[in-house]
Formats: sequence, C-alpha cells, structure tokens
Amino acid sequence: MSNYADRLEAAILAKGAPICAGIDPRPEWVPQIFYDTAFDEFGRTQKGVRFAVRSFCLEVLDIVAPHVPAVKPQAAFFESLGPGGWADFAAVCARANQLGLLVIADVKRGDIGSTAEAYAQALFGKREIKGVEIESVGVDCATVNPYLGGDSVVPFIDRAREHAAGIYVLARTSNPGSAEFQQLQLKPGGALVDEVARKIDAWGSEGIGKCGYSDVGAVVGATHVDAAKHLRALMPRTPFLVPGWGAQGGHAAAVRACFDADGKGAIVNSSRGVMHAYAAGPLKAHGEAHWREAVETAVRQFHSEIATLASEPA
Amino acid sequence: MSNYADRLEAAILAKGAPICAGIDPRPEWVPQIFYDTAFDEFGRTQKGVRFAVRSFCLEVLDIVAPHVPAVKPQAAFFESLGPGGWADFAAVCARANQLGLLVIADVKRGDIGSTAEAYAQALFGKREIKGVEIESVGVDCATVNPYLGGDSVVPFIDRAREHAAGIYVLARTSNPGSAEFQQLQLKPGGALVDEVARKIDAWGSEGIGKCGYSDVGAVVGATHVDAAKHLRALMPRTPFLVPGWGAQGGHAAAVRACFDADGKGAIVNSSRGVMHAYAAGPLKAHGEAHWREAVETAVRQFHSEIATLASEPA
Repeated sequence: MSNYADRLEAAILAKGAPICAGIDPRPEWVPQIFYDTAFDEFGRTQKGVRFAVRSFCLEVLDIVAPHVPAVKPQAAFFESLGPGGWADFAAVCARANQLGLLVIADVKRGDIGSTAEAYAQALFGKREIKGVEIESVGVDCATVNPYLGGDSVVPFIDRAREHAAGIYVLARTSNPGSAEFQQLQLKPGGALVDEVARKIDAWGSEGIGKCGYSDVGAVVGATHVDAAKHLRALMPRTPFLVPGWGAQGGHAAAVRACFDADGKGAIVNSSRGVMHAYAAGPLKAHGEAHWREAVETAVRQFHSEIATLASEPA
Repeated sequence: MSNYADRLEAAILAKGAPICAGIDPRPEWVPQIFYDTAFDEFGRTQKGVRFAVRSFCLEVLDIVAPHVPAVKPQAAFFESLGPGGWADFAAVCARANQLGLLVIADVKRGDIGSTAEAYAQALFGKREIKGVEIESVGVDCATVNPYLGGDSVVPFIDRAREHAAGIYVLARTSNPGSAEFQQLQLKPGGALVDEVARKIDAWGSEGIGKCGYSDVGAVVGATHVDAAKHLRALMPRTPFLVPGWGAQGGHAAAVRACFDADGKGAIVNSSRGVMHAYAAGPLKAHGEAHWREAVETAVRQFHSEIATLASEPA
C-alpha cells in the first residue's frame, strides 16, 4: 500500500475512529514522578528535564496506541527544551512508528527551493552523503505552510510521496487571528483561503489513492460549520486534519462538516485534552497520581465521541 | 543597547557594510578534507558526516567574521543531517555569537498560541523548568511566517524583545512561485503582501529603536525594483532582510530600493555565493584546495559591492 491516504484509511478502519493524539508536552504538566526519576539519574540538569519529558511522552504513546490510528508530535515543544530537543522529537516519532501508529510531524515548515528539499529530507526517508546513510525523523506525514507558494510546497509533496508519506498544508487554522490574512477577500471573489484550497486540491491531484483521497491534505480548524462545509466542497479529495477538538473550542457540527457524507476524509486531533488530561482536561478529578487512568479515559472518550460523530448523517 | 535594530545598526557601522553571510551548508559542497578528517575520528557514520559539516561551518564563520555584522544559519540544512542536526545548528549559532556576530536564525517558524511561544522559547533567552535553567539556541533574530495571523507572530515579537532580539516576518520572498499567494489582488485594492506589510509595520510600532527602525523586520526578496520601492514605502520603519543577492537572481537596482535614501534600513544576504564560493560561485577557479581563499575573496567582494550600492543615491 503505497499512498498515504490509503494507509491512513486502513489505520482508521483498524482502530475504529478517525482520531489523532497530539503529543504536545508542556513541561509544567508532566507529572512530577518523571522529573524525580530523571533527576535521580541525570541530576537537576537540562538533560534531566529532557529525559523526564521524553519518558512521559513515550508512556503516553503506550497508553494511546491501542485506540488511535495516528499521533501528531508537535516539534515546538521539543525544540523548546534546548538544542537536544530535536533528537527527543525524533525518538518519540520512532517509538510511535514502532507501535504501528502513523506519525504526523506537526512542524509547519515552509521554505523555498533546495531549502524546502532539505526540510523534506529531514522528515521523510533516508539519503546518502559520501556513502553514509543519513536517517531522517522518518515520519508518515508533516504539516506545511503555503505562504511562499506552490514551488515551496512541491518539494515536500515529492519527497513525501516517494516514501508513501503525505503532507497537510495549512489552510484555515483555528486560532482567533486566523482570519487576519486567511479570510482576506480577493478581487475576483472569495477569500485567500479559498485560493489556497483550490491550489491544495490541484497539488494533490496526482496523489489520489484507492480510497479516493489524496496524499496532500489540508489543516482545517473546525471553528465554523459554514466555513468547514465550504472548504470541504472546495477540496473534495483532500483529507483534512482537524485540530479543533477539545481545548481549541471546536464544536461538533463544524467537525462533522469536515467529513464527507460517508464520515470519511478527515482526522480529528486532540492534544492537551488527551495527554494532559489530568492537568488540563475535564478529568482533573483523577489527580496527578492517576494520570495514566486520566489519559486512558480521555482517549477512550475521544474515540467514542468522534466515531459517533463521523457516523452521523451529514 | 536594548533594541535589535540599534544593535544591528551598530554592528553594520562597525563592519562597514549592511551584509549577512548565510550559513546553508550543502553536504555535497563541503570540501572533502572535512569528511576525511571526520571519518578518521568517527568512522563513515552519520555522526561523522555531521561533524564534517559542522567543522566546515565553524571555519567559514572564522573567515567571514571580520567582514560581516551578521550571519544567517539556515535550520533546514542542519535538520536534514538527522536528529542530532539541531544541536549542530545551535553550536554554529553559539560560535557566531562568540565571534561577536549577530545571529539571524533562518527558521521560518509559525504556529499559534502556546506553540508559537514554545518556538520562541527555543530561539531566544533562557527559561526555568523545575528549577533547571533551560538554554535556547540563543539567537539575535529569527525569520517568522505570517500566514496564521498576528496572534501567531506576537509571541515571537514579545519573547524576542525581552531579549533585545528581533524577528523578520516573511513578506515578499524571492522564489519564482512567491507571487502565487503573496501577489493576489485584494478586493479593497492592493495585494496580499501589501496587507502583510501594513501589519508588519503595525506590529513593529512599539519596538522602534533610536535609529528609527523597529525590531520587527521583513523579508523582502529584491526581484523587482518597483516592488521593492513599494514595500519600502509601506514599511518606512521596518528593517528589511534581503535574500536576493547572488545566486537567487537579485539585481542591484532592486536591492538599492530596499534601503532608504541614506542607505540604511536593510541588510543583504548571500549564502552559497560566499560559503560555497569555490563550488558554486564565480570563484570556482580557486579550486577545492583553496576553498578558504575563495570564501575570503567572495566575502570581501560582497562587502565592497553592497557597501558601494548602499552609499549610492536612491
């Protein structure tokens, strides 16, 4: 099976819900026990902090793996732990891969020409330099920013496709300020995001899998039901990555509108609501000592909510 | 001196030209001697390749340091060397800092809310987690993508400003496909890039230094003289980072138009034309064995060309 969209559909079928667990480790919400253990081994050092955060992420992966087809590690939180953080990001991606999960690297990269190629080389597959095999992070998918234009996106598509991987291009994001540029009205009519959407549809036209969806997806924040319906119609073959569930204020109708009539074509992400359930979600009652149960309860609930939602009539 | 624009102006005055050397190491253009030495020590391994590339970058920094006020390491080329590459990127930034150079991290990051904060924490200053001091890459400036809107840019500005650092927001890039979105015409008139430019000007309004320029800059590819003049007028207090010199096809009049009448307000970057001068520039005659002389010649020539250009009448 060599198309990302087909691999994603198979993984969703196997796990029973189109969901994705975001791996966005906030140091302040990592249970204290991880710091205690890490500081015992490495002292109160930057390495100790990194080890604690990484260990927590790896345990979260073990808990969510039976329930989710995919995880989405967020590079920023690893980079913010210092120069070694990118290696932890890679270690988390590798473990997720070993657990049979699809890994969506949330990196929001974007650059031009050979620099875009270098970013893509950092994410997908292997390459050779002077006869030495250079490993990438080796993910199944990554998020990409479209502002620099198609020639900045195509190197990601090309490299991803060679490795049966995919990309999600940022279309409409879920932050309050997303409208500032994305919803600017264009002279011929429509908004900037509509033009981005049409281009995403076109970029993906050569990567349609057996499932009818492309290996070029779109990030679509489910903040408004009409906006979601509109973008779904503009990109009928584009798989959506929907970051709006839980903490980011998405609501059910808008999320439902990101799926097609058959409940396919989208995957919904929840980050802090799952991995930091004991600290930030509605499951605080579990308390820090029972953080594992909170994650398990949260991911099961998330699974059930989205599986139900996707199966409802459009 | 606590404002990035003032620090940049002082550095430009000290070195005599508003130029920046891009550190974009392409493995195929790193002289063989670096691989030979690295493989002797680490074997033909990924670590060996990384060591070779890093050693080359550090030597390039030594050569260019007397001539340039700033360097711009490109994260992509380091990330593409594998999970440890980010640490090499940090090492290169640290050495440049030790050499008294301003460091502009070319990372083109962009994300929302607390994720944007995490990216900014990765780049600027230090922070504390559980009583442990966490070091960032510790740069003076970074490039940021505006597509997600103002609330995605402000966390970078805030964190940078706290550390007397700055950012350059992507406005008009120098790739052939840059017009695809950046030049879309808006209903009220003007192009998307004009609206981005107005926002960049506004975001920077609270960060104006004694020199009259802000700590919020713009990346402006000098591909067309009229476009450069237009953007200069829209952002009168915004320092420009101009990537168009040398290999990317910028030409003198368009670059001149990125400066103000006094020859201030911009810094011009050259990447492969300097660091890879023996391999990719007009200085191939030096040959690989004399790569140092090629870099030295190239950076001196670049210095002279831009110093002259900036001093010409507008």
